Amino acid sequence: MATPIPSHQRIVPGSVNLPPYPWPATAKDTSVDPVSIAESVTSKLNGSLSSGDFASISELFIDNGFWRDHLALSWTPRTIKTSAAIADYLSSSPTKLSSVQVDLTSEFRKPQIASFAPGASPDVKGIAFYINWGTSLGTGRGVARLVQEDGEWKIWTMFTCLVELKGWEEKVGARRELGVEHGKQEGRKNWRERREGEQEKGEGEVLVIGAGQSGLTIAARLKMLGVKTVVIDTNEKVGDNWRKRYHQLVLHDPVWYDHMPYLPFPEHWPVFTPKDKLAEWFEFYAKALELNIWTSTSLTSSKWDEGTQTWEVKVNKGGREERVLRPKHIVLCTGHSGKKFMPDIKGLSEGVFKGLAVHSADFAGAKQQQEGTERKRKAVVVGACNSAHDICQDYYEKGYDVTMVQRSSTCVVSNKAALKVLLAVLYEEGGPPVEDSDIWLHGWPSEVMKSIQIDLARIQREMDKDLLEGLEKAGFRTDKGVDEGGLFMKYLQRGGGYYIDVGMSQLIIDRKVKVKQGEEIEELVENGLRFKDGEVLEADEIVFATGFMNMRTQARHILGDEVADRVDDVWGWDEEGEMRGIWKGSGHPGFWFHGGNLALTRYFSRVAALQIKARLEGLGA
Amino acid sequence: MATPIPSHQRIVPGSVNLPPYPWPATAKDTSVDPVSIAESVTSKLNGSLSSGDFASISELFIDNGFWRDHLALSWTPRTIKTSAAIADYLSSSPTKLSSVQVDLTSEFRKPQIASFAPGASPDVKGIAFYINWGTSLGTGRGVARLVQEDGEWKIWTMFTCLVELKGWEEKVGARRELGVEHGKQEGRKNWRERREGEQEKGEGEVLVIGAGQSGLTIAARLKMLGVKTVVIDTNEKVGDNWRKRYHQLVLHDPVWYDHMPYLPFPEHWPVFTPKDKLAEWFEFYAKALELNIWTSTSLTSSKWDEGTQTWEVKVNKGGREERVLRPKHIVLCTGHSGKKFMPDIKGLSEGVFKGLAVHSADFAGAKQQQEGTERKRKAVVVGACNSAHDICQDYYEKGYDVTMVQRSSTCVVSNKAALKVLLAVLYEEGGPPVEDSDIWLHGWPSEVMKSIQIDLARIQREMDKDLLEGLEKAGFRTDKGVDEGGLFMKYLQRGGGYYIDVGMSQLIIDRKVKVKQGEEIEELVENGLRFKDGEVLEADEIVFATGFMNMRTQARHILGDEVADRVDDVWGWDEEGEMRGIWKGSGHPGFWFHGGNLALTRYFSRVAALQIKARLEGLGA
Repeated sequence: MATPIPSHQRIVPGSVNLPPYPWPATAKDTSVDPVSIAESVTSKLNGSLSSGDFASISELFIDNGFWRDHLALSWTPRTIKTSAAIADYLSSSPTKLSSVQVDLTSEFRKPQIASFAPGASPDVKGIAFYINWGTSLGTGRGVARLVQEDGEWKIWTMFTCLVELKGWEEKVGARRELGVEHGKQEGRKNWRERREGEQEKGEGEVLVIGAGQSGLTIAARLKMLGVKTVVIDTNEKVGDNWRKRYHQLVLHDPVWYDHMPYLPFPEHWPVFTPKDKLAEWFEFYAKALELNIWTSTSLTSSKWDEGTQTWEVKVNKGGREERVLRPKHIVLCTGHSGKKFMPDIKGLSEGVFKGLAVHSADFAGAKQQQEGTERKRKAVVVGACNSAHDICQDYYEKGYDVTMVQRSSTCVVSNKAALKVLLAVLYEEGGPPVEDSDIWLHGWPSEVMKSIQIDLARIQREMDKDLLEGLEKAGFRTDKGVDEGGLFMKYLQRGGGYYIDVGMSQLIIDRKVKVKQGEEIEELVENGLRFKDGEVLEADEIVFATGFMNMRTQARHILGDEVADRVDDVWGWDEEGEMRGIWKGSGHPGFWFHGGNLALTRYFSRVAALQIKARLEGLGA
Repeated sequence: MATPIPSHQRIVPGSVNLPPYPWPATAKDTSVDPVSIAESVTSKLNGSLSSGDFASISELFIDNGFWRDHLALSWTPRTIKTSAAIADYLSSSPTKLSSVQVDLTSEFRKPQIASFAPGASPDVKGIAFYINWGTSLGTGRGVARLVQEDGEWKIWTMFTCLVELKGWEEKVGARRELGVEHGKQEGRKNWRERREGEQEKGEGEVLVIGAGQSGLTIAARLKMLGVKTVVIDTNEKVGDNWRKRYHQLVLHDPVWYDHMPYLPFPEHWPVFTPKDKLAEWFEFYAKALELNIWTSTSLTSSKWDEGTQTWEVKVNKGGREERVLRPKHIVLCTGHSGKKFMPDIKGLSEGVFKGLAVHSADFAGAKQQQEGTERKRKAVVVGACNSAHDICQDYYEKGYDVTMVQRSSTCVVSNKAALKVLLAVLYEEGGPPVEDSDIWLHGWPSEVMKSIQIDLARIQREMDKDLLEGLEKAGFRTDKGVDEGGLFMKYLQRGGGYYIDVGMSQLIIDRKVKVKQGEEIEELVENGLRFKDGEVLEADEIVFATGFMNMRTQARHILGDEVADRVDDVWGWDEEGEMRGIWKGSGHPGFWFHGGNLALTRYFSRVAALQIKARLEGLGA
């Protein structure tokens, strides 16, 4: 029997665990003028591009350089590694890059001497700068990072991401709608009548399933591209995906990281958004962006016609009427997580346990207990990540006797370290525009991102030293994440396995919340649960904060086996470090996954929407 | 009998018609360094301020210079004219200005050679710059304009406006709330529970009556100052003040001018906002800013206690329960306009007329007429300003035979000229931050503002030449506004009398909508209206777009004679050019008016809220 993979190294099954990228050498000359070096490299690149001399382009890169490309030259997100492969990629692309320009429009974008590895020793210094570029199909932005090799400045990583399609530029800023049609309009409808008509009609080239952050962001991006879209959601109200979650839920990511496209959170918005406040924002977002959302609506059947490349989807609209939609594309936005995952524990389905046993997704919140009652009610929470911690805290504050069941280990990061180390510079008060930050972040190839995260995680653990030691002493096991890459790598490679501490860790350290560590549950018994080691833990209420299955399970559940069998698994890296199955062709034509936290849905909603638009318009995608 | 005042010169009765300010001479040296001149003047000012040598300050100003002060040195908005009066004002102020700093934080704010009268011939060039300043009570911003007199740079106009009170700084940006309380909280409520509690409680130091843009903006400003506030509105939903207006209403001001405090309209927002879309924004605004608004709630009685300086107000909340509130201040926000104004026409109240006769405020919209019916339905709209035009256009587009009754004259500005001439530079795509624009605009003393508007109106009329001539030929009378100051002066000095053309003027020019000009209505008859000249105009529907009475009439209506008799008339200028009765003490302690278009409520909500806060905290106000 093979040694089981240790918990901290677990990644989504089938995904590729790319190793960290060895840091290149730091530049020798850092008193150079970064602008002229950036201009010179860019000018050589433009020269080679215009003459079609792709071989000479490879010489601009270090051997192990990267070109990450989100739709500039291919209709699927790609990361190309090695200078030779880059030349091949550019030469074989049907679209040709032209006019790569150094972006001088702000201090942050301008070429600068940058510290690429401030957490490493020694630091790696080079030159970073933003670019703008165009092709015959569109325009975009990106970021380039140069390092110095044998005295010569070469491109280490290049990133290009498509922003606008020619002919379908977004109607924002100077291109915004007028809002009124001047002059005479026979039988003119007013805005409300037009909106209600659109909303009701359901004439959609795209059907989006789910109106959480994923559904809202993709619908907003598609709307801006002029794509007719309908969003359906089984909930009664937009925002219910958050509203119905556990009582005390507050986002663990800060506001600067959470902005949604086109409608940023205002300046007075709290750092951490409570769930009901976020739900209200979602409701308004749908109205402000004029998205067509059918609530209380479920899909009853779906059929893909290979010949016409069209879906026939029947939905029960508002519980009142059956409607038939014929979209070209379906985007599944029911959460980057799939169906609830409940461990297969003896006695669970049989109802042996006499108390309340629910999945965290169905947990309504702890009830306030009276002080001084003879016997405290006992709560057991199975799981040791964000939700499990929040639920334990809720139980504790309401006067329960609480035990957390941690079966393996958890990557714990204090709230403070998450803000000051993981998100600092890019996502903080007074930071760069969030669009710039996203380009900086996603402009890193995943291997390099891992190297950065390993450094940051080390700094974070030093900052959180007392916390982590305290937890270990209290019997709670912490880990360093995949390849010691910390929280962010766990999120991208595994989709969970971490806790951003907002106060619960101290309750564990102080033994106010107990921990049962390292044992699997054998079975549920009448008054609690029995572990494999024989111990019986009494419980009045058990919450399984045991996570969710792969998104693909939702595809199976909602659209059936025929679709689910054709799609790829979702999440975790492919061999290039791009995410699998999501934000790109799913394997099934006309079928897409979109999901993730607010920040990922912000950035990748555009990547996905542009691919869908390109297919609808026959742009070679 | 005195000659009646011509229509274009009409201003709010009792207000002061300040003359335009004669332009100072243009600067001789415009190749100077504006920064060093600004720094030098500011440094002299600071020197005099710190030594208390107020006489020397007067020498920094030209004789006829101004200091407009919105709460830096006095608890009521003031405009002080002449260098001698300025020295008096500064020396007698209980608060002392300190540390006036030149604001170098952006190109727009930085000292620059500015054209003060680009519409005049010759132009008046000088130096303009933004300032920051502090006192023991607060900090603020402002703008100074210098002119050159006998070679010497002197202050022509100085403007100081209070932005923050020390100890009550707004919780925005770096001071925003965390949104989550870390660590254990016994019996912790979640955000929704806390919000619902606050909303229901009605524990208000301030009661705001009306939840339109005025009520929302003042409540938002007070909230940011930590003042407990309750807003009541008789409507069922926030936004109904716009939602219930005529069917085709779209704002005549563009989005760049309309931003509300703390939650700017997003980049995709249409230039001109349709009424129902604005209503949705208002609803969300109330939620996003967490304002305590009681809808379907009317005031049933109110009593001012002079001894305790407190109101006792009874309200019928939601049509279900009586609640008693004891605010220290009431802010009346039922529209800068007061009650509907219906002309006193014979036959109107008697119901002689057999068709529909309503005020524009009650006009639901025209009904679509069938093509080719034998007899077109006839609509008559009495009035010739924005609403009257929109309603005529609605009738025309729905297939009616339409006549507009214009009794006097109207200041007409094309939509294009309004954008390109009146609002350009300050309120346009890519313009300065709206806060900077407001300071620039309100930093002008009213007399100078009038001179600027006279120039702009002349440019506008040249741009609109064909339009204006066409209207006159079609029998529609246009005017140039008070002292030829155009639309903006009509708005500030009279509160109406203009039309921003969004298409109706062409319908008049093309004789598609008829005009009955210059005659007063004698009486309503069974099938229409008879004019003093004997003509009878047949009508099936008559809409009186005849405007609204002074805000003070609302005070009388809602709060009774005892209050209304003590308050000043509202709107139009006082002898300093500050607006009368509004955004400052009304004459009745604890009673305030707030109102105006979105732009005025944005700026003046802060002016009013700071005065209220100062009184609540006993800061000498």
